[in-house]
Amino acid sequence: MATFCMQALGCEVSAIHTVNYSNHVAYKQFKGRKTTPEEVADLWAGLRNARLDNFDMLLSGYCPSAALVEQVGLIARELKSRSYAKPGSFFWVLDPVMGDNGRMYVAEETVPAYKSLLKDADLILPNQFEAELLSDVKIRDLASMKQAITRLHQTYGVPHVLITSIRLPATAANTPTQAEVDLATTAKLSIIGSTATSDMKPRLFRITVPALAVFFSGTGDMFASLMVARLRQAAQDAHLLDKPSWRSPDEVSAPDVPLARAAEKVLASMHAALKDTAEHYEAAAKKWTEEGQGERKSGKGDEASEEKDTQRHLALTRAAEVRVVRNMKALVSPPNLGSFKAQAVDAETHGDADGDI
Amino acid sequence: MATFCMQALGCEVSAIHTVNYSNHVAYKQFKGRKTTPEEVADLWAGLRNARLDNFDMLLSGYCPSAALVEQVGLIARELKSRSYAKPGSFFWVLDPVMGDNGRMYVAEETVPAYKSLLKDADLILPNQFEAELLSDVKIRDLASMKQAITRLHQTYGVPHVLITSIRLPATAANTPTQAEVDLATTAKLSIIGSTATSDMKPRLFRITVPALAVFFSGTGDMFASLMVARLRQAAQDAHLLDKPSWRSPDEVSAPDVPLARAAEKVLASMHAALKDTAEHYEAAAKKWTEEGQGERKSGKGDEASEEKDTQRHLALTRAAEVRVVRNMKALVSPPNLGSFKAQAVDAETHGDADGDI
Repeated sequence: MATFCMQALGCEVSAIHTVNYSNHVAYKQFKGRKTTPEEVADLWAGLRNARLDNFDMLLSGYCPSAALVEQVGLIARELKSRSYAKPGSFFWVLDPVMGDNGRMYVAEETVPAYKSLLKDADLILPNQFEAELLSDVKIRDLASMKQAITRLHQTYGVPHVLITSIRLPATAANTPTQAEVDLATTAKLSIIGSTATSDMKPRLFRITVPALAVFFSGTGDMFASLMVARLRQAAQDAHLLDKPSWRSPDEVSAPDVPLARAAEKVLASMHAALKDTAEHYEAAAKKWTEEGQGERKSGKGDEASEEKDTQRHLALTRAAEVRVVRNMKALVSPPNLGSFKAQAVDAETHGDADGDI
Repeated sequence: MATFCMQALGCEVSAIHTVNYSNHVAYKQFKGRKTTPEEVADLWAGLRNARLDNFDMLLSGYCPSAALVEQVGLIARELKSRSYAKPGSFFWVLDPVMGDNGRMYVAEETVPAYKSLLKDADLILPNQFEAELLSDVKIRDLASMKQAITRLHQTYGVPHVLITSIRLPATAANTPTQAEVDLATTAKLSIIGSTATSDMKPRLFRITVPALAVFFSGTGDMFASLMVARLRQAAQDAHLLDKPSWRSPDEVSAPDVPLARAAEKVLASMHAALKDTAEHYEAAAKKWTEEGQGERKSGKGDEASEEKDTQRHLALTRAAEVRVVRNMKALVSPPNLGSFKAQAVDAETHGDADGDI
């Protein structure tokens, strides 16, 4: 997912795989192996020895263990330290993949491992749960969201923060159930981002997008990889590529920072690709529902029905695979870009009852 | 290389890596590891268990050991046997990567391993040396070329054969030196292909392309992967997707078979991408030549000069990396397609002194 998305937008990519599985885990079964930290170190040494290590950007993602997080951190810090002599020449996008919806899916020890790396990251892309783990702030409303982002800027020195898949309960009455959260059935999703000012104050913007009623795997990697390509373009457009961390001058307002410009394009591309995938998924789901009804009428046994459930799960998980190759055009030319406008966020005036983010 | 080329042409790709190296071996140094046959079997089992194994095509490439060739063969034969009930529903493109220019770069035992798999392959893509290893015919001229292809059709039952990077000595006087062969300085390269008739007679065509004076790595994988996508399109255009091995009726002449149509597009795309890469390479080579002359004048020592030679080799090897992402447009829309026309070949009438292939 990540490699293709970056290549589709013109990046030459060297990929070091942190796991090598037959399929993603939403299938509830997979084969293959994790890459060991030693193997990652070895591959990096090979790239360095062959002088193939002059990267403009690094995207780091899923690492199942703290040891792997630390190994990836060593690579990132090596690249980062070389860029000190030439500001802006290297940019690290760190996606601190740890969990979602209150549940961790990597080892607990990755949390402190990621925290110790944050000072060298240029942009982090946590979801709401991961932002809570990194900032130690429980995000309940806009005010606590701002508090979490401020802490990531000020305590950890991260210049750019973008929090994905935000679901703030509007009121206690319409708090989504777990099933609703799993299916992303909330009608709107927000992302909230911030590029810190020179005194590390947040510059908050948000983009609200229509949510689709399907659980897609890999959208985190899709978002992160498209951001890599789009952020560099936006920073180039703003003549910031020779500035440390491509940070905008203080007079630039929140919705005008390259982070916001890039996120608009990424969300427009993703919405088009996901909408196409959702249509494909709905057709597959309808077929399975009709077959299921037919079989309940014919009174098939428990064992056959259990096998049928497995088949259904596998088929629908596959149908929900983001149709990224077929939608390459939408990646390259984001459709309906005007519908994905970044808006400035002022946490103080809206308060914690702001239901529309 | 292969994954990206297929994705660029719209294929959804599942890649099982047979090696996982930091870089290709032309750098003369690399790190990383080979995938074991057990790991390949495991990943395949994972795909099968998750019902992700309904592939339309398989491209198999570099396998460093005979055991790995055999494991890949097991996967291919499993897929092939399922297609018996539905002719044309699976197509195996086998690239028997073993060596080039008279030198093997995998284990000797891969030769019999590949031979035993040929009966299930739909298309094989050997270079001239690999065609000799598989057919046991020494290719010296057009007549022996035809003999080799005939044997691959008749003894091994391979319906489609395409021989890449052909260098037939025109006369003894202008036989290229090894250095010339390495640098592909011969002004023209040919590929010769054949789709067998129903009685396994060859239908020979050739396409001649201008050669570029640079050694590129990965062009074999580029050719094979683009062929996968283009051959399916050409077979679809010819309404052959429900025919065994997408074989054309006997009345179709050699230059009109889908294999020829596909190869024309692939070579046009490749020529554009390689020409752009060659220009990039020439600029890098010029820079290194100028620096080298400056240093010889300043009389630097042997050790520094040896290190400089290594740096030069690494830099030029990198400069020769095919610029495939930047040339995606040429992959999708082959430029100057008219210059890459397949021509019928008649070995009998031309004889062994035909210098222009």
